[in-house]
Amino acid sequence: MHADLASLVGAEHVASDVALADASGLSGRVPALVAPGSAQEVAAVVAWCYEHDVAMVPVGGRSGYSGGIVPGADPDTVGIALDRLDALRSFEPLLWRMEAEAGVTTATVARRARENGLIFPPDPGAAEQSQLGGNLATNAGGPHAFKYGVTGHWVTGIEAVIAPGELVSFGGPVRKDVAGLDLRGLLIGSEGTLGIITAAWLRLVPAPPEALPVAAAFPTVRAGCAAIDAVLGSGVVPAAIEYLDGRCIAAAPAPFLPDAGGSELLVVCEAESAHDRDELLEALGDGAVAPPAAEVWRWRDGVSIAVRAARGEKLSEDIAVPVERLADAIEGTIAIGARHGLEGCSWGHAGDGNLHSSFLLDPGDDAMRERADAAALELFVMARELGGTASGEHGIGLLKAGQLSEQWAPAAVDAARAVKRALDPKGLFNPGKKEP
Amino acid sequence: MHADLASLVGAEHVASDVALADASGLSGRVPALVAPGSAQEVAAVVAWCYEHDVAMVPVGGRSGYSGGIVPGADPDTVGIALDRLDALRSFEPLLWRMEAEAGVTTATVARRARENGLIFPPDPGAAEQSQLGGNLATNAGGPHAFKYGVTGHWVTGIEAVIAPGELVSFGGPVRKDVAGLDLRGLLIGSEGTLGIITAAWLRLVPAPPEALPVAAAFPTVRAGCAAIDAVLGSGVVPAAIEYLDGRCIAAAPAPFLPDAGGSELLVVCEAESAHDRDELLEALGDGAVAPPAAEVWRWRDGVSIAVRAARGEKLSEDIAVPVERLADAIEGTIAIGARHGLEGCSWGHAGDGNLHSSFLLDPGDDAMRERADAAALELFVMARELGGTASGEHGIGLLKAGQLSEQWAPAAVDAARAVKRALDPKGLFNPGKKEP
Repeated sequence: MHADLASLVGAEHVASDVALADASGLSGRVPALVAPGSAQEVAAVVAWCYEHDVAMVPVGGRSGYSGGIVPGADPDTVGIALDRLDALRSFEPLLWRMEAEAGVTTATVARRARENGLIFPPDPGAAEQSQLGGNLATNAGGPHAFKYGVTGHWVTGIEAVIAPGELVSFGGPVRKDVAGLDLRGLLIGSEGTLGIITAAWLRLVPAPPEALPVAAAFPTVRAGCAAIDAVLGSGVVPAAIEYLDGRCIAAAPAPFLPDAGGSELLVVCEAESAHDRDELLEALGDGAVAPPAAEVWRWRDGVSIAVRAARGEKLSEDIAVPVERLADAIEGTIAIGARHGLEGCSWGHAGDGNLHSSFLLDPGDDAMRERADAAALELFVMARELGGTASGEHGIGLLKAGQLSEQWAPAAVDAARAVKRALDPKGLFNPGKKEP
Repeated sequence: MHADLASLVGAEHVASDVALADASGLSGRVPALVAPGSAQEVAAVVAWCYEHDVAMVPVGGRSGYSGGIVPGADPDTVGIALDRLDALRSFEPLLWRMEAEAGVTTATVARRARENGLIFPPDPGAAEQSQLGGNLATNAGGPHAFKYGVTGHWVTGIEAVIAPGELVSFGGPVRKDVAGLDLRGLLIGSEGTLGIITAAWLRLVPAPPEALPVAAAFPTVRAGCAAIDAVLGSGVVPAAIEYLDGRCIAAAPAPFLPDAGGSELLVVCEAESAHDRDELLEALGDGAVAPPAAEVWRWRDGVSIAVRAARGEKLSEDIAVPVERLADAIEGTIAIGARHGLEGCSWGHAGDGNLHSSFLLDPGDDAMRERADAAALELFVMARELGGTASGEHGIGLLKAGQLSEQWAPAAVDAARAVKRALDPKGLFNPGKKEP
């Protein structure tokens, strides 16, 4: 195996017996991790694997939360790292367009866009670490997905290697295209189970003239969610509507709301004009403040780490529910934790009904981790009962295998399986991931 | 056949020997056109057809431009009209959300949203006639797709009948969901070839505070396209960037630019604030005007009909190219027409590089129509050579069968065929349509 792979990508780009882990807490080992230097080399590696019935797991920035890059049960799985595919193949600011390879980081895309007065709106966390390919594989979201939509909305074309090792493109720089079935959209969010995305054409957009956050803290979850309702009824389209529950506020105190300790919900919205900011301040009511955007997002970026630090470890999910059930899901998260002897809490993308429901854990306490795993299953049940989903933006990966079968009708699951078989008849693309 | 179908939907909802035609100029007959009264009845009809190996063609508002509702070669094809599925199952303005059945017209969705201070941004033409199901089947666009994206961007879930007659949902009211493969997105734009969409959950958004069009006419195509470049470089995100070439200006004079006769390009953009309007006026240069939105869009809605009326008949395509190739495509359309002894012209969605390239025809002149058909094939070649696509928003239907094979690599086409086979193993869903 190693000699063959080395002949395709160079011996210095084949590592042996490598541990693969992401932010999910899952990990595993692959006998070989190859780092192709081009899309053509990715195709050559896939062709070799497909010919030799060798399973593949594509590896991006390793910042995922669902074990998407952790190998499944097959000990002979080859890891394919996209790091070396880090070229911006083209960037045409005046055409609001960029073609970037899969290994380009989220931060690089964002920075290059910003330097030219543009934004690439999807803003999942871990920007310095996460890569475009991973964002595409999970159809990543982030705070600004509320107004701007998830990653796939901003991708007009992808280049991918599909079975049995063919480098193809679906779409391109053209902004509208209905000539074929939307295989571009099908591969986005497929977590590498239908092929390996090697590059994408991104749609950019001029940066909004201003980023004007507003924030307020509320004594109860219900009061905070009522304020979110008022925001939705204000006539304004906020760029983001974020929230933290009381436990998260305590773990990650907001510098712009020093008196929020003891509050049960903190709400942050972002306006893009002074007029809209004033409307949002009114919707959030007395005590709402309008801190600088840099301060808000610097703080917000640290929330996940701060919540983890509160006890040393945590288990986080990313269920999503219809927005009118947000309060139920926030309270339900705490109640589920309590039933398992765990401190439950959540924060997330309120406007999208997307909760990062979490349980605080003592590091190394395996029994506690097992209780949290059991509690997580109850989170999925709750999400479904509220009309929602087991994953809003992190994907299924290894961690949530089997959840779709609880969520979709059998015929719908059969359709998903049929599509998987059609595009990956040998079942070699990231086996065990996104398993219904 | 008729007795069986009548037993499923009621004899009064089964018509015999019905002609089916849309705006493409194509037509055909089906031995039976059934009009189910519910999604469950659609499922029953599909199940009967699938069991008896009978081909199906779903029929919406009949306003399509590619013959998507015109039966293919099989004389025993059953038409399934969605007209009676015309319920708004739910409408929650404060949650920016609507669940509508496939037979609801585009105008109804727009009107109900507007009455509540919201918009459903996709705005394809023929709003009073076209139905949501058809918009989803073609992933329809329209002028405001430039800022807001096409239909699929605004759909969080669909209900559909898939083989062999199963009523399923992919997604729902929840705004973010990556638990399964994106079969929602796959069915959108599939032109009824993978199943029949019976309802959809639509995402709405508060209406922009203002709709402030600006317009200008230019002496040459290149000068007009340079102005479009200036618009893209202005830092403003226009809601729409439309254009008409000289022949279309003559056919559909703009009341707000009475001196535009003899101009070679007319550009209309829409701003959503006074600040942005002023920026766009500056980008369009001397002579730019800011007419009322109602006047602009009433005129714009009539352009297609006015161009047809210029000579009595026309053949229109909807190629799309990267926006920097727009001028080439506009001039190329005229040149292709000239080579075939036809008056070529175009108008469309400039910002998306989406041209309704057309040839003016004398009604009933079959030889002229044949020359136009040949010229249309050259339009597709030109679009591909410019890095674009044979269809930006109308779909492939019957009219453009075979175009995808010229546009995608063989392996990509094979993937599309494999997906089709996986979801429609008997090939009974709208056969002959969207044929690669």
